[in-house]
Amino acid sequence: KDGKEIWPRGDEKTWKAGIRGIPTSVSDITNAIVYHVQSTLARQAYNLDNMGAYQAVALSVRDDLIVKWNETQMQYTRKQPKRAYYLSLEFLMGRTLDNALLNLGLKQQYKTATHKLGFNLEDLIDSERDAALGNGGLGRLAACYLDSGATMELPLWGYGLRYHYGLFSQHIAPDGSQLEAPDPWLDTDNPWEIPRQDVTYDVRFYGHAERIGNGKAVWTGGQEVLAVAYDVPIPGYSTNTVNNLRLWDAKPKRGFDLNSFNAGDYDRSIQENSSAETLTRVLYPNDNHMLGKELRLKQQAFWCAASLSDIIRRFKQVEKPWAEFSDYVSIQLNDTHPTIAIPELMRILVDEEDVPWADAWDITTKTFFYTNHTVLPEALEKWAVPLIEHVLPRHLQIIYDINMSFLQAVERKWPNDRDRLARMSLIQEGEPKQVRMAFLATIGSTKVNGVAELHSHLVRETILRDFVDFFGKSKFVNVTNGVTPRRWLDQCNPSLSNLITDTIQKPKAVWLKDLTLLKGLEPFAEDPIFRKKWALIKHNNKKHLADYIKTHLGITVNPASLFDIMIKRIHEYKRQSLNLLGIIHRYLTIKAMTAAERKKINPRVVIFGGKAAPGYFMAKLIIRLIVNVARAIDADPDMKDILTVVFVPDYSVSLAEILIPASDVSQHISTAGTEASGTSNMKFCLNGGLLLGTVDGANIEIAEEVDSNNVFFFGHLTDAVEDLRHQHKYHPIAVDERSPALAAVLKEIEGGRFGDASVYQPFVDTIRTGDYYLVTDDFDSYVEANKMVDDAYVKDPEEWTKKTILTVSRMGKFSSDRAIMTYAEEFWNIEQFPIKM
Amino acid sequence: KDGKEIWPRGDEKTWKAGIRGIPTSVSDITNAIVYHVQSTLARQAYNLDNMGAYQAVALSVRDDLIVKWNETQMQYTRKQPKRAYYLSLEFLMGRTLDNALLNLGLKQQYKTATHKLGFNLEDLIDSERDAALGNGGLGRLAACYLDSGATMELPLWGYGLRYHYGLFSQHIAPDGSQLEAPDPWLDTDNPWEIPRQDVTYDVRFYGHAERIGNGKAVWTGGQEVLAVAYDVPIPGYSTNTVNNLRLWDAKPKRGFDLNSFNAGDYDRSIQENSSAETLTRVLYPNDNHMLGKELRLKQQAFWCAASLSDIIRRFKQVEKPWAEFSDYVSIQLNDTHPTIAIPELMRILVDEEDVPWADAWDITTKTFFYTNHTVLPEALEKWAVPLIEHVLPRHLQIIYDINMSFLQAVERKWPNDRDRLARMSLIQEGEPKQVRMAFLATIGSTKVNGVAELHSHLVRETILRDFVDFFGKSKFVNVTNGVTPRRWLDQCNPSLSNLITDTIQKPKAVWLKDLTLLKGLEPFAEDPIFRKKWALIKHNNKKHLADYIKTHLGITVNPASLFDIMIKRIHEYKRQSLNLLGIIHRYLTIKAMTAAERKKINPRVVIFGGKAAPGYFMAKLIIRLIVNVARAIDADPDMKDILTVVFVPDYSVSLAEILIPASDVSQHISTAGTEASGTSNMKFCLNGGLLLGTVDGANIEIAEEVDSNNVFFFGHLTDAVEDLRHQHKYHPIAVDERSPALAAVLKEIEGGRFGDASVYQPFVDTIRTGDYYLVTDDFDSYVEANKMVDDAYVKDPEEWTKKTILTVSRMGKFSSDRAIMTYAEEFWNIEQFPIKM
Repeated sequence: KDGKEIWPRGDEKTWKAGIRGIPTSVSDITNAIVYHVQSTLARQAYNLDNMGAYQAVALSVRDDLIVKWNETQMQYTRKQPKRAYYLSLEFLMGRTLDNALLNLGLKQQYKTATHKLGFNLEDLIDSERDAALGNGGLGRLAACYLDSGATMELPLWGYGLRYHYGLFSQHIAPDGSQLEAPDPWLDTDNPWEIPRQDVTYDVRFYGHAERIGNGKAVWTGGQEVLAVAYDVPIPGYSTNTVNNLRLWDAKPKRGFDLNSFNAGDYDRSIQENSSAETLTRVLYPNDNHMLGKELRLKQQAFWCAASLSDIIRRFKQVEKPWAEFSDYVSIQLNDTHPTIAIPELMRILVDEEDVPWADAWDITTKTFFYTNHTVLPEALEKWAVPLIEHVLPRHLQIIYDINMSFLQAVERKWPNDRDRLARMSLIQEGEPKQVRMAFLATIGSTKVNGVAELHSHLVRETILRDFVDFFGKSKFVNVTNGVTPRRWLDQCNPSLSNLITDTIQKPKAVWLKDLTLLKGLEPFAEDPIFRKKWALIKHNNKKHLADYIKTHLGITVNPASLFDIMIKRIHEYKRQSLNLLGIIHRYLTIKAMTAAERKKINPRVVIFGGKAAPGYFMAKLIIRLIVNVARAIDADPDMKDILTVVFVPDYSVSLAEILIPASDVSQHISTAGTEASGTSNMKFCLNGGLLLGTVDGANIEIAEEVDSNNVFFFGHLTDAVEDLRHQHKYHPIAVDERSPALAAVLKEIEGGRFGDASVYQPFVDTIRTGDYYLVTDDFDSYVEANKMVDDAYVKDPEEWTKKTILTVSRMGKFSSDRAIMTYAEEFWNIEQFPIKM
Repeated sequence: KDGKEIWPRGDEKTWKAGIRGIPTSVSDITNAIVYHVQSTLARQAYNLDNMGAYQAVALSVRDDLIVKWNETQMQYTRKQPKRAYYLSLEFLMGRTLDNALLNLGLKQQYKTATHKLGFNLEDLIDSERDAALGNGGLGRLAACYLDSGATMELPLWGYGLRYHYGLFSQHIAPDGSQLEAPDPWLDTDNPWEIPRQDVTYDVRFYGHAERIGNGKAVWTGGQEVLAVAYDVPIPGYSTNTVNNLRLWDAKPKRGFDLNSFNAGDYDRSIQENSSAETLTRVLYPNDNHMLGKELRLKQQAFWCAASLSDIIRRFKQVEKPWAEFSDYVSIQLNDTHPTIAIPELMRILVDEEDVPWADAWDITTKTFFYTNHTVLPEALEKWAVPLIEHVLPRHLQIIYDINMSFLQAVERKWPNDRDRLARMSLIQEGEPKQVRMAFLATIGSTKVNGVAELHSHLVRETILRDFVDFFGKSKFVNVTNGVTPRRWLDQCNPSLSNLITDTIQKPKAVWLKDLTLLKGLEPFAEDPIFRKKWALIKHNNKKHLADYIKTHLGITVNPASLFDIMIKRIHEYKRQSLNLLGIIHRYLTIKAMTAAERKKINPRVVIFGGKAAPGYFMAKLIIRLIVNVARAIDADPDMKDILTVVFVPDYSVSLAEILIPASDVSQHISTAGTEASGTSNMKFCLNGGLLLGTVDGANIEIAEEVDSNNVFFFGHLTDAVEDLRHQHKYHPIAVDERSPALAAVLKEIEGGRFGDASVYQPFVDTIRTGDYYLVTDDFDSYVEANKMVDDAYVKDPEEWTKKTILTVSRMGKFSSDRAIMTYAEEFWNIEQFPIKM
């Protein structure tokens, strides 16, 4: 039919006359905005505040997105290209308006239009609430990948949960502690989602599973919950593709219990409501720590079941045999969180679709791909067998069946190697027994990858070593993470993006989609006029951040200082502690100086941002100490214009967009071997902030690309970690002996210089005793690295600028476009599918 | 400034260019609909069902309404006419789309537009879900009054609650019983409301009230709940006025408790959510029965507090002294449900605005007006003092203070009349003490009215007799209810409306706003050609109903039969029982006939519709018996085409719109003195259905208007009721003696003819013993009246048609326009305020 359809109903001309294009003239845009003010919001110019104007502008942009969204989805439906689905329990999207305008190429027109209507577009952009449906890197990576998928014109959908409460808002109590407040981000209408009341699936929990032979079973009873789809359009940059992120909301299947209500039992009358709706109530605020909560397991199962039902409904439309399922569908498991999708697909195929077990297993393993995000033992998901049995009785049967066939294969390969069987079993013995989700994800997938070279290496060598032996090396690969240069350069640092465009003489629509073209900057590092422009942009970004800090925190920082930024979840392995102890050391050092000596010092502003999981005592204690050290330094007149420490509360994507372009140096100082990749390291370097870090995660590859001259490395290497920990445990040496500088710092804390010493003693003890994260081992070299930073910054500013230019020019590899194309080509086997309009 | 404002912000021309008018050409309308399909719904012609098309059309009409809504509200704000506010706990709106199209005068254009897009407008209209935010007459009256207020161009707003669940859906179980299912009418998006996230008020419950002298107090602690406004546009018929119905939704003030959640206590984490949201969760399914539930009291207080805060915020914009409050504001209390607004206004004035007590009382009593809706003792609201003390401690203090001043005045007037003081006190002694809300409403209001002549008379003579003595007669008046002829004639019976228009030679825009012009039909009663047209319309309406019954219930009814309809809440006082027992009597009579005799019988279809309150055992039993009698008759081949009984489940406004135009006769047969007015009697007569009724409520005034020749009256009069009840109680006579016909009927029930006799025994016992509603007393005359109906229908069809024409022509008085203008002129002192566009 040549793509042309017979008109479905009514008069084709009448329909077509009403179909909207995307308005591009300023007057059409102002009309569209005024329409939404007047009609959708039922407001008028008289009573319109920034929030109202933001909503009207957002609704207008939403209409624009939907034009392309409709077209994209229709063309996918007609042509049925193979699709990939990215299952992630977190999507840390941040704000949408600015990104949508840039990706649509309409920002200038909307700027003019809003100005004509009496508003400033940047203020409206700032009125938007972040969609904080993620904890940190894993969730933000998912958001970058969706952006790249759409930009690379790939048929890629995301599936997640529509949490009613995003990651908590962080406040700082008077004593410096973190306080958590709920983030009810949906309380105001969210223009960036399309409710799909007609796309719903039933999901079962609990009940009883009865085996009926041939590997099949019947699962009945229990609780049924309704999954309702909400679609979030994901626009590609400068393409017609607008992909979809489908988020599931949980609704009660029957709802309100009128009988209980009439009997006066209000609580009971909404019990099923609550029980269902609680499923998507909250994003679990946790990071790199396994949660053993039933509700979390139910979230995972709910999301996987709804997503698979949706994927299968779509597959059935092409009317192909099940054997071809994986020719139409690839599913990426972002970490082990969606691993329950593996037994769920088996359940659907075997129990509901009558596919023989072996065929079903073949289809399943061809469909899934698994990304590991951590080798930290405390973060590896394990679910208690009794819990799974209670919540998902049929899935437990399937897991046992999968395990049995798998272990039989292991036995055939290595007969009688009982240790190996025990090591590789999906079921970990103990009380209770536990299901090792990473193993299930591994054997259920075609490929398994880590997220940076070192991390992928560690995955192969440590937690999945036996599986590499069994499956062979080719199944275990690496895809180094990336970041989208649209948000993390063009959007957050428009001056730099414009300068780059002018300099490399490529349109943004070209170089922002092929980031290796940044290479074109390299020769200009030698051009002093260019360097001046470059440095001025950094200076202005620092001024912008200084203004933000002044306005929001009342702290004055001097943009002439070196801006040293560390933003990420607060975690012992990330070692904000090391940075903090280094600051105290610097403080003590400066205090010991004469006034003349102090004058020579490179003034530094150290900025922290990040949230601690509410239940993570030590991380919260570290925040408290950071805040109180910052206050002590702020209160000390000797430190004025020499050292300032700022803790920026409520770190978010939007805040990162202000902080990152303003950095001179950023810190990524995890204990070697603990940070899988990191992605903020990439964002900083892409914005001309140099890297101060350990030889860990993607730091290593960044250094490989930008040249290690342009990176400040320090600390022990991964290979040394195990031995050092062994030494700490069995041959401890006192801190005073190993690092007198650090010992002096600890003594100040213990002496009460930053408030009640007893409060911080548990933190100091983690350093003094055990020191699992090797702060004592790395402290001296960390201090040394900081000196090198100071020297480089102060002694030869031109050289520093050169370093930053060279760094940016060599960051091409770290575009998430490169990463997503690797997944597309080497994993999912999907093709670019440009949308014609 | 001549009404012309200085442009508020941005470029005036740009704004004005974008301001939308109301499209009236078919092509503009199709464009608007297609826009909503494509953009708002993100759907396409390919996947659009009737529900989707309905939503798109509704959104387009919503846009049209908002054009006028915006203009109306702006002109009110600019010119500040005195406004009236109608506080009703129920607004039984029914569907909106059809009504909005008719009131905007755009139905024909939308019919053509939807046809061009491949849809049938009537099907789309049928896709809409009823807004069933009311139980029965009281709620529907409120809806009619809003329609009339807008049509009469009065500055009148409604205030109510946004119940998430409307009145339950009624299903019939296999055994014939009523089953109740929740009505989650907001589960699909509701295009007829505008959320106002920016219009919110805090409402307090519980806590502690501390007196601080001068009648003032400070109320602190307890629970605070957020009231959020949702606006429902109320278009006038053929005017520019679009008034507002503001419904309050309850939201938690703080919301989700993250700490509890993190501690794993999910139930507790949403406790405040649930507790707040439960407030507007459900409309209490009850009718003419006082509810003593804490939640109901909280609903009332929440709604009154939010509404008063909103009214006061608006008053403050005019910057006038408090003494002038009632020059800007009148508030009508629809029944006692909003009576707590009286102490609430006192609280705001005295505690928050520092108005001296006496002045505050003066302002308050000038502001409020109270409509009484019942003299049934079981329906008179009384709240236990300890409950009010717990939930609204400050209001209880104020009620006590009001009571004290009031009783002092009584004492001054009638010194030492202690019985009188006890009778008139707001506080009824007992365990527990109770607050008599009708008394509080009476002393807090300027005028008190009943809703029909007889009822107003009974109010003055019975429950408020002492208050008439105290305040004088002029305070206690009558406003007979009315119904809007737009919905209840033009919309539900378009053929009849068109015939009337052609006949009386007045445009609809004239006669539908001045219903006395129906008088012009009277001469045509003598015109046989006109009568033929008239009768044909009735016949077609009956065919339409017959189709509905066939399609939905699978029952065949012959449109040539007499259609006898009784639709209203199921209640003993309304005496569906009498109708039912009469049917059984008719059945037995026919069974006793020869085939030849049966041939002469006027075939009759008796249709029941109505819901019983879920907790009202006897009403539910009556439904069960109706259903089983209907089944027995349906199963009896002797009854074919002679007698059919239909119980139409899930009675609603929309169903009434199908039933009423199809009636030949309708029954309004309450025990004399119990039905305050009735309004369906007016609707039936307006559509040419004759009235079979008791001398009760508005039946009396209808008969006065249409001539009692055209009404079938029967039964004892109000004056006799008290004596009859006394006789029943103290000098009972067996049914067999008093009405052998009825006794025979009861015996059939007890003999198991309609199923297990023991099930129905409690019902039969209410007739045999006590017979509070006088079924035995009225049975014989009821049977006689039915014979007269049959005779009149069969013997002279032309005469019957004349009766129906004369009836319609004389129904002018019963327009709700007349009623609302009485309120406007004689109560509220507000003026018509036409909106210029």
